[in-house]
Amino acid sequence: MAQAATARATVGDSEFDRDTALTRREPGVYDIDLSAGWTVFGAVNGGYLLAVLGRALTDALPHPDPFTLSAHYLTASRPGPAIVRTELVRTGRTLSTGQASLLQYDEEGREVERLRVLASYGDLDALPDDVRTTAEPPAIPPPDQCFGADDAPAPGSVSSPITDRLMLKLDPATLGWALGEPSGKGEMRAWFGFADGRDADPLALLLAVDALPPTAFELGLTGWVPTVELTVHVRCRPAPGPLRVSVTTRNLAGGFLEEDAEVWDGAGRLVAQSRQLARARLG
Amino acid sequence: MAQAATARATVGDSEFDRDTALTRREPGVYDIDLSAGWTVFGAVNGGYLLAVLGRALTDALPHPDPFTLSAHYLTASRPGPAIVRTELVRTGRTLSTGQASLLQYDEEGREVERLRVLASYGDLDALPDDVRTTAEPPAIPPPDQCFGADDAPAPGSVSSPITDRLMLKLDPATLGWALGEPSGKGEMRAWFGFADGRDADPLALLLAVDALPPTAFELGLTGWVPTVELTVHVRCRPAPGPLRVSVTTRNLAGGFLEEDAEVWDGAGRLVAQSRQLARARLG
Repeated sequence: MAQAATARATVGDSEFDRDTALTRREPGVYDIDLSAGWTVFGAVNGGYLLAVLGRALTDALPHPDPFTLSAHYLTASRPGPAIVRTELVRTGRTLSTGQASLLQYDEEGREVERLRVLASYGDLDALPDDVRTTAEPPAIPPPDQCFGADDAPAPGSVSSPITDRLMLKLDPATLGWALGEPSGKGEMRAWFGFADGRDADPLALLLAVDALPPTAFELGLTGWVPTVELTVHVRCRPAPGPLRVSVTTRNLAGGFLEEDAEVWDGAGRLVAQSRQLARARLG
Repeated sequence: MAQAATARATVGDSEFDRDTALTRREPGVYDIDLSAGWTVFGAVNGGYLLAVLGRALTDALPHPDPFTLSAHYLTASRPGPAIVRTELVRTGRTLSTGQASLLQYDEEGREVERLRVLASYGDLDALPDDVRTTAEPPAIPPPDQCFGADDAPAPGSVSSPITDRLMLKLDPATLGWALGEPSGKGEMRAWFGFADGRDADPLALLLAVDALPPTAFELGLTGWVPTVELTVHVRCRPAPGPLRVSVTTRNLAGGFLEEDAEVWDGAGRLVAQSRQLARARLG
């Protein structure tokens, strides 16, 4: 049985799959119990929420894969029961467009909307192989030269439930904030995978783009950086194995900042791009 | 009267203002006649359409300024009558969120949705002055060393109605495509203003991010590059005077490409950022 205990989780049979599983209540309407396993400092991770809505749309739309999702975050989600309502906006030959909302109940039992998404879906396997990209993968040292939560000097000090579910190894060049010496540059880079060994699929990319510590930490800010809007483009089905994620901020101004993420697979392909607008608490 | 004839148009009294003017039919629902003046090769410009929905939301939402709009383009708009339907999704203290759809009628008189937008609005004048940006404005030669439609060797050859309404001066370094010698780099840079001298306001930024020729032209592609999704972040109220716009593509692959735009004002501030996912016709 030792073999079973160390077996890698697979797509369809993993923590991420179980925690994004939806029960169809009626066509286009789903129930889900938001897991406490994807929280950080008590807040449910925005990438996990996006993956939940992305999975609902995979069921509700005629095309299988997320190509682009734009999410506006409205109120803070809590672990526990939630409802997903979807709408088919348009069906086209190569793309279909849908909308999805995540709702929870307040103390009086009224529905409160947490997150609304517009999304266009297609078929990643139907895309031509043409690549004329000029983008280069981020330079990140090998995983054994990067740092995860397990490597923290005080074990558990930076741990949160989501940390336990991810294999996140941060580039030491973007880790100054953890030592009290932020670089002043809006950069964060890491290797990304699931702790249980599940490979990434397009839905996992929706989590990957919002899984790193905020770039604001390297800009000398502390505390929560809530997402206002997050748009992801999935460009390619990722190859098995760990992913490289690079997040960059060019403009921190007026109490807001953008975070641009790129996700690269082991085959050297740019598999996802994202941009979010987040609020900064300027000290 | 010569003075009146050469007077600069102003915000509120210009072609752009007249062509984005909406008539409120009932609360949250508006009529508009889409102008043929913002078409290029027969298609209504996506930035103009975004400005129309942005203006409707300025009326429908409690906050005055667009902070972030995410648009999914569904079907091709035509000049002529259209309806805008808006929904107030959430009202917060510093931000409110809304949704807007642009619809037109088909031959049988049925409504067809052209474009759907999720947007969060705030008050640009209420933002703190903090700027910790590391971004640098694009290096574009002065306008008199850049090239507009008037400078084309065959007058009118690259003219389209939108060209007549804009003051668009392209950086010669990104103009190789017009001479049959595309650079192979996904870059397009230009000075942007209105031909009638109207200064840019936040709504004009929604047009500015989608007004340049496609970066795909410099990558050696020709023909139409339809937008699937376009998200804009307005970061600052622009100073009067011409704007600098830089558009970059890093990843052309699988028949799609992203276009990242930055808009800088004369005060050296990054006033807007955008990213779109567009379809490429690979030759």
